[in-house]
Amino acid sequence: MKLGPTLDRLVEAFRRLPGIGPRTAQRLTFHLLQHDREAAVALGEALLAAARDIRHCARCNTLTEEAICATCANPRRDAGLLCVVESPADQLTIEQSLAYSGLYFVLLGRLSPLDGIGPRELQLERLLARATEGTVRELILATSFTPEGDATAHYITEMVRARDPQLKITRLARGVPAGAELEYTDVNTIAQAMLDRRAA
Amino acid sequence: MKLGPTLDRLVEAFRRLPGIGPRTAQRLTFHLLQHDREAAVALGEALLAAARDIRHCARCNTLTEEAICATCANPRRDAGLLCVVESPADQLTIEQSLAYSGLYFVLLGRLSPLDGIGPRELQLERLLARATEGTVRELILATSFTPEGDATAHYITEMVRARDPQLKITRLARGVPAGAELEYTDVNTIAQAMLDRRAA
Repeated sequence: MKLGPTLDRLVEAFRRLPGIGPRTAQRLTFHLLQHDREAAVALGEALLAAARDIRHCARCNTLTEEAICATCANPRRDAGLLCVVESPADQLTIEQSLAYSGLYFVLLGRLSPLDGIGPRELQLERLLARATEGTVRELILATSFTPEGDATAHYITEMVRARDPQLKITRLARGVPAGAELEYTDVNTIAQAMLDRRAA
Repeated sequence: MKLGPTLDRLVEAFRRLPGIGPRTAQRLTFHLLQHDREAAVALGEALLAAARDIRHCARCNTLTEEAICATCANPRRDAGLLCVVESPADQLTIEQSLAYSGLYFVLLGRLSPLDGIGPRELQLERLLARATEGTVRELILATSFTPEGDATAHYITEMVRARDPQLKITRLARGVPAGAELEYTDVNTIAQAMLDRRAA
């Protein structure tokens, strides 16, 4: 049965979400239109508003609707600590651990030469300038404990050391399970790893 | 970390979908805004279009963007066969089995007195009028094989028999696993059950 263009289009749009297969897409479509049109409208409007209004923070790159995100704009955050993460989701996980009160730099990726992601794509020049401009007294590398995350941390360490051999550079403690992605790690493990961060 | 009103609203809207928890809602939000804004816009527009344009077919109650759905409007469907299903999703599953060429009546529910769903809510008077107006030669009850689905089929059988004792009334064969919902049954089982439909 063809559902007709409007329903087919909605099923197709759901299928573009990660982890949503054809049956789930169909079930979500029927559920919303049969039982909860309000939720359909709420989600539709929220998606369009977010796609229109959400941009990257001019300081840390995270997703925000302001020019400067709430964390960067917060005068109570310790500007002497700069934590480097791969994604806004990783940043959120660290925030939820309540173990960190400094600022962030969000790479929006990690070094992956095979995918064409190098130092320029991650804006590492901007990170270098910021880390060595004098305010930062400790640079915390919170990339994932995967080969690519390790390589990214290593590259940043070498790059910053070349400019300022004195700057303290640390990495999250290996309380985080090897091979795990930060985003999927429970917040207590993250808190432990933040407390035990070690010299890079 | 507060994500800000626009992102929080999107996470909340995702959470209203069945089967989507807080972590998945967050992950979908970050994924779309970081990697696939086009998909966010496509889904947002598809949701609003569907919520605005999709209504119920005036003949069979299924979800459609026309006054009369494509199945009811198709002159090649056998109007002598009328299949009663609980939901548009159940109807779609039967269509996908390719074992049926008649028309449908979609109850949009099943009898459930404790939830306040009785014969009136299911528009059974309309079903009775249609089943006994002279065109229909067989009424096929394809409600779920659950206690409520069985009760609904039984009620409809008694109701139609009282008006027209001669009308042939059948039920899907019990090839469908007992206790299962139609929507989740594989189409081959549905096809078998359609072929083996038995007297009610």
